[in-house]
Amino acid sequence: MSDRLNGIFTPNIVPLDDRSRINEPELRKYVDWLIERGVHGLYPNGSTGEFTRFTAEERRRIIEIITDQVSGRVPVLAGAAEANVRETIHACEHYHSLGARAVAIVSPFYYRLTQAGVFAYFKEIADHSPIDITLYNIPMFASPIEVATVRRLADQCPRVVGIKDSSGDLPHMMRMIAAVRPSRPDFSFLTGWDAALMPMLLIGCDGGTNATSGVVPEITRKLYDLTLSGQLEQARQLQYRLLHLFDAMLYSAEFPEGFRAALRLRGFDTGLGRQPQSPSQQLELDALARQLQCLLAAEGFTREPVGGCPAAHSVDPDQLAQIVRRVVDEIRSRAH
Amino acid sequence: MSDRLNGIFTPNIVPLDDRSRINEPELRKYVDWLIERGVHGLYPNGSTGEFTRFTAEERRRIIEIITDQVSGRVPVLAGAAEANVRETIHACEHYHSLGARAVAIVSPFYYRLTQAGVFAYFKEIADHSPIDITLYNIPMFASPIEVATVRRLADQCPRVVGIKDSSGDLPHMMRMIAAVRPSRPDFSFLTGWDAALMPMLLIGCDGGTNATSGVVPEITRKLYDLTLSGQLEQARQLQYRLLHLFDAMLYSAEFPEGFRAALRLRGFDTGLGRQPQSPSQQLELDALARQLQCLLAAEGFTREPVGGCPAAHSVDPDQLAQIVRRVVDEIRSRAH
Amino acid sequence: MSDRLNGIFTPNIVPLDDRSRINEPELRKYVDWLIERGVHGLYPNGSTGEFTRFTAEERRRIIEIITDQVSGRVPVLAGAAEANVRETIHACEHYHSLGARAVAIVSPFYYRLTQAGVFAYFKEIADHSPIDITLYNIPMFASPIEVATVRRLADQCPRVVGIKDSSGDLPHMMRMIAAVRPSRPDFSFLTGWDAALMPMLLIGCDGGTNATSGVVPEITRKLYDLTLSGQLEQARQLQYRLLHLFDAMLYSAEFPEGFRAALRLRGFDTGLGRQPQSPSQQLELDALARQLQCLLAAEGFTREPVGGCPAAHSVDPDQLAQIVRRVVDEIRSRAH
Amino acid sequence: MSDRLNGIFTPNIVPLDDRSRINEPELRKYVDWLIERGVHGLYPNGSTGEFTRFTAEERRRIIEIITDQVSGRVPVLAGAAEANVRETIHACEHYHSLGARAVAIVSPFYYRLTQAGVFAYFKEIADHSPIDITLYNIPMFASPIEVATVRRLADQCPRVVGIKDSSGDLPHMMRMIAAVRPSRPDFSFLTGWDAALMPMLLIGCDGGTNATSGVVPEITRKLYDLTLSGQLEQARQLQYRLLHLFDAMLYSAEFPEGFRAALRLRGFDTGLGRQPQSPSQQLELDALARQLQCLLAAEGFTREPVGGCPAAHSVDPDQLAQIVRRVVDEIRSRAH
Repeated sequence: MSDRLNGIFTPNIVPLDDRSRINEPELRKYVDWLIERGVHGLYPNGSTGEFTRFTAEERRRIIEIITDQVSGRVPVLAGAAEANVRETIHACEHYHSLGARAVAIVSPFYYRLTQAGVFAYFKEIADHSPIDITLYNIPMFASPIEVATVRRLADQCPRVVGIKDSSGDLPHMMRMIAAVRPSRPDFSFLTGWDAALMPMLLIGCDGGTNATSGVVPEITRKLYDLTLSGQLEQARQLQYRLLHLFDAMLYSAEFPEGFRAALRLRGFDTGLGRQPQSPSQQLELDALARQLQCLLAAEGFTREPVGGCPAAHSVDPDQLAQIVRRVVDEIRSRAH
Repeated sequence: MSDRLNGIFTPNIVPLDDRSRINEPELRKYVDWLIERGVHGLYPNGSTGEFTRFTAEERRRIIEIITDQVSGRVPVLAGAAEANVRETIHACEHYHSLGARAVAIVSPFYYRLTQAGVFAYFKEIADHSPIDITLYNIPMFASPIEVATVRRLADQCPRVVGIKDSSGDLPHMMRMIAAVRPSRPDFSFLTGWDAALMPMLLIGCDGGTNATSGVVPEITRKLYDLTLSGQLEQARQLQYRLLHLFDAMLYSAEFPEGFRAALRLRGFDTGLGRQPQSPSQQLELDALARQLQCLLAAEGFTREPVGGCPAAHSVDPDQLAQIVRRVVDEIRSRAH
Repeated sequence: MSDRLNGIFTPNIVPLDDRSRINEPELRKYVDWLIERGVHGLYPNGSTGEFTRFTAEERRRIIEIITDQVSGRVPVLAGAAEANVRETIHACEHYHSLGARAVAIVSPFYYRLTQAGVFAYFKEIADHSPIDITLYNIPMFASPIEVATVRRLADQCPRVVGIKDSSGDLPHMMRMIAAVRPSRPDFSFLTGWDAALMPMLLIGCDGGTNATSGVVPEITRKLYDLTLSGQLEQARQLQYRLLHLFDAMLYSAEFPEGFRAALRLRGFDTGLGRQPQSPSQQLELDALARQLQCLLAAEGFTREPVGGCPAAHSVDPDQLAQIVRRVVDEIRSRAH
Repeated sequence: MSDRLNGIFTPNIVPLDDRSRINEPELRKYVDWLIERGVHGLYPNGSTGEFTRFTAEERRRIIEIITDQVSGRVPVLAGAAEANVRETIHACEHYHSLGARAVAIVSPFYYRLTQAGVFAYFKEIADHSPIDITLYNIPMFASPIEVATVRRLADQCPRVVGIKDSSGDLPHMMRMIAAVRPSRPDFSFLTGWDAALMPMLLIGCDGGTNATSGVVPEITRKLYDLTLSGQLEQARQLQYRLLHLFDAMLYSAEFPEGFRAALRLRGFDTGLGRQPQSPSQQLELDALARQLQCLLAAEGFTREPVGGCPAAHSVDPDQLAQIVRRVVDEIRSRAH
């Protein structure tokens, strides 16, 4: 197991300046901060890193900055998906020359390919890449990579050394491990679904590429350590707290805006994302930021917002219905 | 084409009394009303008729009442799906003895079967039924029936004489017609998707089992007539009006509550449905009833509600966000 | 925790005789066999028990036989979903009088209800039931029950004492536990997804209603015990073996035919299922039975089939493509 | 209606040379061929044009070649989606300077945005674009654009002059037309779903961006003309033939390989696509090419393949099961 990719890799957000360019000094500062807080590796140009919203030149520049700043302290897993196989292989070559430990390549997206197509795509890249490759399965965004395809790639492509799976489907992870590990003990299984990190590790995962580790690296790392050392009761409690943070950041705003808002609360000048936000989304982001500040304050990472944090509560939909009814009446009266 | 099932079949709602029993006098009155307004046939125990919410005995009783009241004036297409193949065949035998023109059998539901299973199910029933059968494809609720399965059943089962398709997928309908009509010119294709009735008829459908025809039979029937007689401009305008009514009844409440509410506005004592409605749903139903009354008044079927009908308008989500923000603040302040 | 429903409840198949009637002697024998092998409770009229394929009278009879045969040795969780709220409440009353520990009620199916509708349905039943109720969430077959709805029901209905969740979604289970356990420490969380039993228990589940326990109760029970006693390495290995069995029974045939075939190999006269099987499905079931016999033989529960069991292998799709090409050519030549 | 975008726009494939570079002479030849056969406009950098598989530079070059070759003979609708809003606006400016009639911008993909996010994205672009914009809704590949969002954009953005919808959902198209046309009579509705072109035109669409028109422009154009001139019986027959061709090209291979294969049969040197094809896919493509040649020969566009074309036939799955059983036995025997 010693040579398998393992531990917590951070899929980092890229800070932008007020003209929406890469904020290099802040990105370098962020890299140092993450490494100091114990993440085992960096994973730039992932989904959290919004690789699709940067140009090819910018993606290259991001890897250059990060490998330079990391300077060998931790391994770098470089997102390398480009427009087509040839461009992707060029990226593999470049990131190899920069000293990345491996590249991560997301399954083809936009078009939804069959498994035969997914296999052919990765096979072609793996046959020409000078650097190790991890597959990246994220079925909500890209063509799914099924178990049989992972097995075929593991069997035929020594360059393919792992998979990062963001489906969050635990039995699926077990099926992949059962299918591949006997013949490829060096193959690494990483989960991208922070909500299930502890159970994923317990059934055999080697680690994770977890967006929460970019915001609360202390917690994600500690959860990893507690689980591996068998302190399950403490790990379970921490997993529940991480789930709460994860859900708040993931589901309360357009991904990855919740993670960006939280990172700002940790003291970084993230700048605004490139995807425009409508006024209604801005309102939601403001509410989310307040909620996140309370959650982060409860973990000791920041102060409570002015006005304090409310006790947990929920509103009954039928009570809410009464209130909404009044609002609708008001809207109706204005519309006349 | 003369002997194909064709025209508009009404999937009727079943009026209930204040103890939630079948309201037989009202049901008989409703049947007469529908026939007087020109529907070509009745289709009891369909999805609109909430067949799953009645007991087996009640389902039988509903067909007995309807065949008796119809008394040969129009053909009856009797929903006959029961718990298993044997029970379904018994229902086929009984409905045959009552003089139903054919039965309609929904694809197996709850479990999602493969096409092999769907085929075996219908084949077994068709081999033992004394009455003609129409398949009923409603993929949002039951196992889908694919084109190849329809073709196999049409080829091997003379008793299977048609399909009622509620997918609303027009090219799917064309694929079925292309696959089956050459070898089975007697096979009927009925659409259950009122929103596309006119274009479905134009590409070759024989008619429809349309829930709107239970509420506004005048319109659904007229749309059918206009389309068949080639008065396309008028048909198109009527199709748009029917779409508006259909969407209001279908999407503004738990199905088929919107249709029940509209039928009440047409003067029938429908009683309450058997699926309980929460207070928030009741509020929505009240609002829907008001909207439906305006729509039906615009068609000349009822009077406008007290207070009149507002001009069409829409609210901008970003303005709405401001209002909601104030509501949320109010809720938050109460929760403390 | 002492009074929470916990442990492994078996969703039992119902043996049928050669006329497709309930085979009462075999069912009684099966109940004894299960209890002897350590299952903690019985769960008749579940999805594995094909409750939708029996008549209302038969469902009642199944519970009568099982409560009589169990005779208090283990708790019985009786599936009680009927055509509508009133019929379901009648079933609750009857099963209460028979001494069932609780009933399990699946979320409304066929129609896909909103959360308001799902809440109203369970609330109405819970307000009138004399017996404890467990919710049953199986989103692939029935209307989903979301976390907020579980919470509302737990808050407002003391009769609702647990949920059986067959989604297999581990973070979803955690979200329910986090939302409900603080205010309802007596509320039980059971997983219906055998593939994740060990991790589900590790994050706080109280047990499971697991179809595998109807076929290999020794394994499912042992997995439960190993996990609860913290023997994680052994538990993990057993979970992988159970996953393999589960996948074979679940995905190789129309559910629950794989479980029925396996139960036959354990020595029970299950009879044929009520859902007809086409010749192509029969062929697949034969192949599955052979595979299952090998898996059960490897666990020591039966002998290997005549001819022995092959070593694990897989076929490369591209090699297979060559073979299929030849088959297609043959088919084409015959078609001329 | 005179100034609405209307007619058949061809989403053209880009021929590649043997080093996978844009084959400019063949592309120019293809443009001329399409215009000569009556398409009303060109639509480069669409999904059929595989815009995601080209680099930003190549996408720009494709528009330059096409606007130059078209030279004003027909309008060009230029696909302009780039990595982010700023890059997309730059593309709008460039394509405006080249004389394109409008740009088409696909809804954000990879990430699935909410409607608030989709609105904000298009609003930002529309506020800064010097050229007219058509929205592009293709929910199977990109974030859906719902009716209310189309309406808001139509109301607030004069630059947004139309939508190309590839959902194939006819009532959805009607809902958009009903929501937008009253206030924006200049707004154009184009369907990207060739399978429903005739009924879409009959309910009010202005035309289509149809992949079939890149392969059989004669048929797609004729279908358009027959429908608009009210020759419905002939139009219906042609729509059925087009459906058959469309299905063969769309569903028998990884999109758009079927269209590329058919274009080759029309005499163009398309080169190989950039998405690698596995050996099993190559076999399927060979079979498809043969089938397409028969279909195109039946339309008079090419000769029958050597060996002739079989009469239509289908194989019964249960017969097939017998054959497959023998194959499986053979595979099993080899695996030992």
